[in-house]
Amino acid sequence: MSQQTVEPKEAKKVRGPLNGVDTPTLFATIGAVRDQPELAKFKFRASNRWVEGTHSRSKAEGFYGAGAEQQHAAEWKFDSDHPPVLTGKDNGPLPVEYLMYGLLACITSGIGNISAARGVKLTEVESSIEGELDLRGVLGLSNEVRNGYQGLKVNFKIKGDAPPEKLREIVEQSRARSAVYDVLANGVPVDITVDAE
Amino acid sequence: MSQQTVEPKEAKKVRGPLNGVDTPTLFATIGAVRDQPELAKFKFRASNRWVEGTHSRSKAEGFYGAGAEQQHAAEWKFDSDHPPVLTGKDNGPLPVEYLMYGLLACITSGIGNISAARGVKLTEVESSIEGELDLRGVLGLSNEVRNGYQGLKVNFKIKGDAPPEKLREIVEQSRARSAVYDVLANGVPVDITVDAE
Repeated sequence: MSQQTVEPKEAKKVRGPLNGVDTPTLFATIGAVRDQPELAKFKFRASNRWVEGTHSRSKAEGFYGAGAEQQHAAEWKFDSDHPPVLTGKDNGPLPVEYLMYGLLACITSGIGNISAARGVKLTEVESSIEGELDLRGVLGLSNEVRNGYQGLKVNFKIKGDAPPEKLREIVEQSRARSAVYDVLANGVPVDITVDAE
Repeated sequence: MSQQTVEPKEAKKVRGPLNGVDTPTLFATIGAVRDQPELAKFKFRASNRWVEGTHSRSKAEGFYGAGAEQQHAAEWKFDSDHPPVLTGKDNGPLPVEYLMYGLLACITSGIGNISAARGVKLTEVESSIEGELDLRGVLGLSNEVRNGYQGLKVNFKIKGDAPPEKLREIVEQSRARSAVYDVLANGVPVDITVDAE
């Protein structure tokens, strides 16, 4: 049922699919998790194998969520390497670049869901990101320079059938609920164990 | 020149390529950056375009580093989506999974470089990661649950021609100088601007 066919006060209740989002199922999922919080517990996983030099290959793995083990639709693999200017062979993006793909994708997927939930039809969402990194940290040449990015600058361009202010609010709400933004902005405990032989 | 042909005290000076790492060039690069710190300033970039629903496609972009604009060897693209259990269509890994590929690849590339610098021949480096995430944060169902991972657990398996303790030290040194580990463990300022129309 299209939202245009119902009274405004009922719009949220019966809002139909929009922007490629199955909005009724999205609301049903949120309702199910509200009723059964254990459905919210997810475990994501990945693996990686060194190839040579700075080249390695990560693999998407199955995950646990919604009360059961889940498999992905395909066996995605992700090569990473350093570029020649860092004595690698550029078999894939640098590891630090993968953080960028995660951040842009996370806020964008949230924009998809939130716009559908609010009945806003999107026509375009594009984003770009830039991060400055001073290699003196990584290379061990300075203890005053951090290893990671000094900062990340993100820009979103969003177009849709709502006023600019409403579109901005959708981006802001997505940021406020973004898992990747939270991890990058606030950090996360990382525990590393090693089996050596 | 192979390291086995020289006296131990000269080994570091003339250490040859190992593990696919052009060790002499690596040392030369570190020396060049020590002499000209401006060569250490890098800017990495990425872009993303929304496809539909929670599906988006990131693209690797050129970067600035070593005093000049640099291009990657190929135009890599990275699809991301939510799985059906989160009302997506699983056109790619979830955004939070990309953080994992970055972390494993970063520590692994460091292991490649550091082992070569220390003259340790590697035969295998494999790693796995798991991260728990409670969706009540992302779904806005709880303000006490964070949006991102509660924590990340990483395991490295490393084999080579050195005693286990030395192999462990290589992993630890890589972690201590990892750009991605730093960003994830300590967080990074993220600035977001929005153009809406």
